[in-house]
Amino acid sequence: MAAPTRDDALARDAADSLAALRERFIVADPDRIYLDGNSLGRLSVDVRQAMAGLVDDWGKRVVEAWNDWVELPTRVGNRLAAAALGANPGEVLIADSVSVNIYKLAHAAADHRDGPIVTDAGNFPTDRYVLEGVARQRGRAYVEAASAADAIAAAAGGVLCLAHVDYRTGRRLDIREVARQTDALVIWDLSHAVGATEIDLSGADLAVGCTYKYLHAGPGAPAFLYVRTDLQSSMRSPIQGWFSRRDQFAMAPGYEPVDGIERFAAGTPSIPGVVAIDAALALVEDAGIPGIAAKARALTSFGVELADAWLTPLGFRIGSPLDPRARGAHVALHHSEAWPICRSLIDRAGVVADFRQPDILRLGFAPLTTSFSDVWDGLDRVRRLVAAREHLEVAAGERRVT
Amino acid sequence: MAAPTRDDALARDAADSLAALRERFIVADPDRIYLDGNSLGRLSVDVRQAMAGLVDDWGKRVVEAWNDWVELPTRVGNRLAAAALGANPGEVLIADSVSVNIYKLAHAAADHRDGPIVTDAGNFPTDRYVLEGVARQRGRAYVEAASAADAIAAAAGGVLCLAHVDYRTGRRLDIREVARQTDALVIWDLSHAVGATEIDLSGADLAVGCTYKYLHAGPGAPAFLYVRTDLQSSMRSPIQGWFSRRDQFAMAPGYEPVDGIERFAAGTPSIPGVVAIDAALALVEDAGIPGIAAKARALTSFGVELADAWLTPLGFRIGSPLDPRARGAHVALHHSEAWPICRSLIDRAGVVADFRQPDILRLGFAPLTTSFSDVWDGLDRVRRLVAAREHLEVAAGERRVT
Repeated sequence: MAAPTRDDALARDAADSLAALRERFIVADPDRIYLDGNSLGRLSVDVRQAMAGLVDDWGKRVVEAWNDWVELPTRVGNRLAAAALGANPGEVLIADSVSVNIYKLAHAAADHRDGPIVTDAGNFPTDRYVLEGVARQRGRAYVEAASAADAIAAAAGGVLCLAHVDYRTGRRLDIREVARQTDALVIWDLSHAVGATEIDLSGADLAVGCTYKYLHAGPGAPAFLYVRTDLQSSMRSPIQGWFSRRDQFAMAPGYEPVDGIERFAAGTPSIPGVVAIDAALALVEDAGIPGIAAKARALTSFGVELADAWLTPLGFRIGSPLDPRARGAHVALHHSEAWPICRSLIDRAGVVADFRQPDILRLGFAPLTTSFSDVWDGLDRVRRLVAAREHLEVAAGERRVT
Repeated sequence: MAAPTRDDALARDAADSLAALRERFIVADPDRIYLDGNSLGRLSVDVRQAMAGLVDDWGKRVVEAWNDWVELPTRVGNRLAAAALGANPGEVLIADSVSVNIYKLAHAAADHRDGPIVTDAGNFPTDRYVLEGVARQRGRAYVEAASAADAIAAAAGGVLCLAHVDYRTGRRLDIREVARQTDALVIWDLSHAVGATEIDLSGADLAVGCTYKYLHAGPGAPAFLYVRTDLQSSMRSPIQGWFSRRDQFAMAPGYEPVDGIERFAAGTPSIPGVVAIDAALALVEDAGIPGIAAKARALTSFGVELADAWLTPLGFRIGSPLDPRARGAHVALHHSEAWPICRSLIDRAGVVADFRQPDILRLGFAPLTTSFSDVWDGLDRVRRLVAAREHLEVAAGERRVT
């Protein structure tokens, strides 16, 4: 079967019901193809406006604005729960970073289970590092299994942390299916899934996630955490900050956690960050997660089809699941020269992708901001660069954050 | 001695070498007298511009801007260290919230000392709550002494956390003097001191502080932490986030803390917040801490003088130290009706002050944004309101954040 043509890409763009939403995002250089929204999502006009508005609000009302701001982490948490997580009101809070939230939930979960603290070696580094530390603090075994399946098997009676969508391969796990397979308390890391795929947390135990990838809330915007309603009253955060205390502003002696999800708050939340999430969610709501997830599947399938036709002859191997329902919105391509290829794409070919150890070129197709012609053009540039062996001029070793 | 007149206030404003800096802050309603910069500092034009610039940078460069952003928490930490803390390069990091930072440092300190974890009952709630939780996790005694002096006495062989400037009374402790009195590792909470008073951390063990009060970095801007250089290599954060790992972007197996202050980082920092701190420090540098601290002493002395003349006859009692070197930039006034007085000041008299349990009207004189005529006018309005008994019309009970 012949590879899709650029006209095919344009035809898909014309039929894309979410295409109009791209107009609400800032694209400074249209010739630069951005395939790294899985690291940092693009800025929208909505978020830019909301952040400027927040700064104005601070300027005008100063401390009196706190009477409104104080409710934001819960209110925006509820909005996120409904828009993108399949969670109930009162189950999601905007707070801290993913690292700090995993730490809090892993400790709280370890109060409920005596067994080991388990994840898989493919999980995102911060999850692994934080869990290792919690296990040592609690005197528990820490198990880093070779695969998610092995992790599920090893976690009986313990605490299990898994990525819903794997940050390298993009493989997507079934939350309900995992719950059926284990009696462990499960902490889902939704960072590479939220805003890109359907997530149904109903019945799930615990979760965390970030907001700066497919939610487009900006660099270092606060993370979120989810705790199922019936677990909340018997769980405590190890970080007993004043935002988690009953009747916070009484500033009374002794700590007592407030009822509800706010007991997993700690200190003063980043208000510009929470406001950015709020504004960003309007775009997710306008698109709707079913439409977003369908577009993610279509974009990744289109990319896989092109990669299969063009790139496998050049030494690439597709590392993501071929079933579109079994992956998120990014695709991993293995290549022994992935690092110089990635650098060359960025520096010479105008394609922003990223590299992941040991040999992965990772292409993210953020559904709200990526067109089918972006995918076509991006992969076409990969093909031409590698076919011409241009990437061999790049030396390895440069530090890069994505 | 007669109370100073409004002309006296204007004369002091005319002689104030920092007066011109007020022009760099936004004042939306000049008739509203803002005496709550000790809760949330005003917005400056510099910070507004820097935050808008950061948002533009995100829009234009997207993930590629991370190559610059990744250095910010350390670079801005160094700038803060030099501008306002008397600390060395490599000793200060912008990270997380005060609550999370106290948590990290208290655990790290408990690895160094076997004794109790101690603070005083007057310390800010989040310090007390967090420390109580750390003590329970570590199986240590938690002591909440009646006073700072009692806390120092009780902390032998343990971990001691004290506020440099007390959030209610404004009393300021001598950091070096405390170090001479105890073998405990001391964690200083600088939240109500930084940007308002001289701080000399040289030789101090550990410290945390916030940036949204006298540093004017905005609601929920990240906090900072300080660890003396020679302590760093033997201290570990309990929250083993990936930003604290050696060779972070290798994403390698197993956790190993990086050398230096970054080992106390956790997850992705709030970049708009760090950028705001950076811009806000330019104002502190332009004024210089000696000038800022001198103005804080002059403003609070002026306020105390007026309060003594006008308010003590109305049932107020000055709760702050009378020696200006022994206090920060705010003044506590006790009054049995402090709560309705505070509400009435805000709602009817155009004076933004705040209330602290059980009977404190707290007036903050942020040196960069408060004039002597603000102090005069503010206290004049307090005097007239209370003399007319207007505040008795206000019912208690409303929740308010400051």
